[in-house]
Amino acid sequence: MNSSEPGWSASETDVMDAITKIVRSDREAVLATIIDVEGNAYRRPGAKMVVTPDGSGVGSITAGCLEDEVVELARRVLEEGEPRVETYDLMEDDDVWGLGVGCNGIIDVLLEPIEDDYSPVVDTFESGGAISSVTVLEDEHETDYRFERGYYDPSDGIDSAADEFEWFGEETERAVEELLEREQSGTVTVTDADRSIKLFVDTVTAPPELVVLGTGHDVAPIVELASKNSFRVRVIGFRGADAVEERFPDAVEVSSTSPSSLRDAHEFDERTYVVVMTHNFLDDRLAIDELLRTPVPYIGLMGPRERFEEMLEDFADEDRTVGDDELERMYTPVGLDLGGGSPSQIAHSIVAELLAVDNDRTPQHLSEREGPIHRRVSSITDD
Amino acid sequence: MNSSEPGWSASETDVMDAITKIVRSDREAVLATIIDVEGNAYRRPGAKMVVTPDGSGVGSITAGCLEDEVVELARRVLEEGEPRVETYDLMEDDDVWGLGVGCNGIIDVLLEPIEDDYSPVVDTFESGGAISSVTVLEDEHETDYRFERGYYDPSDGIDSAADEFEWFGEETERAVEELLEREQSGTVTVTDADRSIKLFVDTVTAPPELVVLGTGHDVAPIVELASKNSFRVRVIGFRGADAVEERFPDAVEVSSTSPSSLRDAHEFDERTYVVVMTHNFLDDRLAIDELLRTPVPYIGLMGPRERFEEMLEDFADEDRTVGDDELERMYTPVGLDLGGGSPSQIAHSIVAELLAVDNDRTPQHLSEREGPIHRRVSSITDD
Repeated sequence: MNSSEPGWSASETDVMDAITKIVRSDREAVLATIIDVEGNAYRRPGAKMVVTPDGSGVGSITAGCLEDEVVELARRVLEEGEPRVETYDLMEDDDVWGLGVGCNGIIDVLLEPIEDDYSPVVDTFESGGAISSVTVLEDEHETDYRFERGYYDPSDGIDSAADEFEWFGEETERAVEELLEREQSGTVTVTDADRSIKLFVDTVTAPPELVVLGTGHDVAPIVELASKNSFRVRVIGFRGADAVEERFPDAVEVSSTSPSSLRDAHEFDERTYVVVMTHNFLDDRLAIDELLRTPVPYIGLMGPRERFEEMLEDFADEDRTVGDDELERMYTPVGLDLGGGSPSQIAHSIVAELLAVDNDRTPQHLSEREGPIHRRVSSITDD
Repeated sequence: MNSSEPGWSASETDVMDAITKIVRSDREAVLATIIDVEGNAYRRPGAKMVVTPDGSGVGSITAGCLEDEVVELARRVLEEGEPRVETYDLMEDDDVWGLGVGCNGIIDVLLEPIEDDYSPVVDTFESGGAISSVTVLEDEHETDYRFERGYYDPSDGIDSAADEFEWFGEETERAVEELLEREQSGTVTVTDADRSIKLFVDTVTAPPELVVLGTGHDVAPIVELASKNSFRVRVIGFRGADAVEERFPDAVEVSSTSPSSLRDAHEFDERTYVVVMTHNFLDDRLAIDELLRTPVPYIGLMGPRERFEEMLEDFADEDRTVGDDELERMYTPVGLDLGGGSPSQIAHSIVAELLAVDNDRTPQHLSEREGPIHRRVSSITDD
């Protein structure tokens, strides 16, 4: 978290933690969520900011262009106790030299008092799942439904509370399901024979978990950076690692076990990323043997490639077969190839790899992904 | 910098700053430098740690395995006032279950009192250049030369002080030049007809500079992360940006100018990386027009590709031609494709791109760079 502007650069986990505290206490606060953007906005629909009655905020919805105005409006929402949608037009064409707010796009923001009915979201976030909350923005006929909310959970389907709303029909469910699968939030308009309804679908996915095996000095920069990027980080060491808990202030847990008891000590699932860095060959090898028996999608191993090949040789000596599906989950040497060998640079490259794998991206320059820069036809003919 | 272990994860710039303070004061300290590694070590030759008489250290030479022992030995070096080379054997085969230090490789460390003769290095670092210091480790015949030092500077050739040493011959110069070009440090043995000499060549290159144009809230996380990764960061804003200096504690300078005066306000050279993020279309466009007239290797522009294409259209309207060599230096959208849209994730992706470009790397998984994992012949036949 940025030391000088603590609230603004809060991670998604920080923001959800702030909401959880409000939901589970008597305190009041307003949640501001981007529900729609047009043009070149800094953040996407679903970006959130929590505003407390003292006017302080956690999270960001723009690059700082709107936050002051939103805090002001949030006070009114608290007083009136009613949700509202505010549209901010920051289109660049309107910028006046020296006066422009220096931000872009048209941004629709939903402001609402945080109520108990937000519980399904914070509960799901905490338990590691995914959920979409569906809010009625506009309903052609039944204006009473404005700001009514239902929940869609991939395992349960539509939350029971939503059964009351006839608008939660098959069409809607399909639209919501699609957004949830893509882990996206956005405003959708669902039309059937009778009428059309405008909904904001907010998909909230629990952050992935990072388990770091090892407690060397090189672990702390990774814990710090991964937490900043919304991973819930656990540090597991062997032989009394709990004694070093204070070295990892950003970890949600620091614990100690033996390599062969790893699977008893913690549940490794499809959302668990693991970086193995005990710096001890035998410990690393035993841990990887265990981890390959779990469904974890990512095992990053510190050290040169040859080191892992030596492990494979040992596995073969023990008649332990390692299949291609297992090898596919091994990332060794760990990290993206960014160069640089300082502790911070190594940590940066590892967390960059975690982000890319978690977000299903091929690591490359964004500018390359989009191909060569096109000069527009008008500019070419002007040349 | 890691809050709980402040010294260990210091950036290369932090370490050099610590050395500079010692050189320019009456204070004493010991510099420990990795001069050679065999096997799987965490850091490469040239990695440095400064140990002050109170036993505190800045920088790291292993993942924490040796630092305590080095601090202990540094006390003796301070007392005796003489450099020494210590070899630490951390080969994994020697690891004993439960006792192994959990670190790998054989590491040679040069420990030396920091003296005035280190000035050329800190001066060059400060002025933005590159230099190799050359230290005699072993000389077959002339043992008096042990730990004598010369300097090699790419512009001046061999430093005058080195003329005294006959060992600084053509062979040596070629070896040193090669390491300096690759920005590498290492131990080399130079042999001619008469004799052989073992030298440690330590190449020190000043950190690149990052200039961020803009002072929005989204700038601070980038300044913080880039500084951690050894960039010297300057923030330049338009219209009174100096008023927000306290928001960028890690920047070496925060200043204000107008877009068209950019080149007067600062020297943009081959080692200057620029991220343009004023969030104002006109400001960004004017700034880029200026920057393209400088030799900067990297101009990262925040915002979607279409935004830059609109700028190109404006340039064309003004008969400003933008050549392919100019377009090659444009990175827009800025950053690597890691996914994630939070302020920290955006900053992480931008700094990852800066590292990759500065270190001349193609962003990819390190595991992919090395190709598929090979099972060794022995393991295949055992299957």
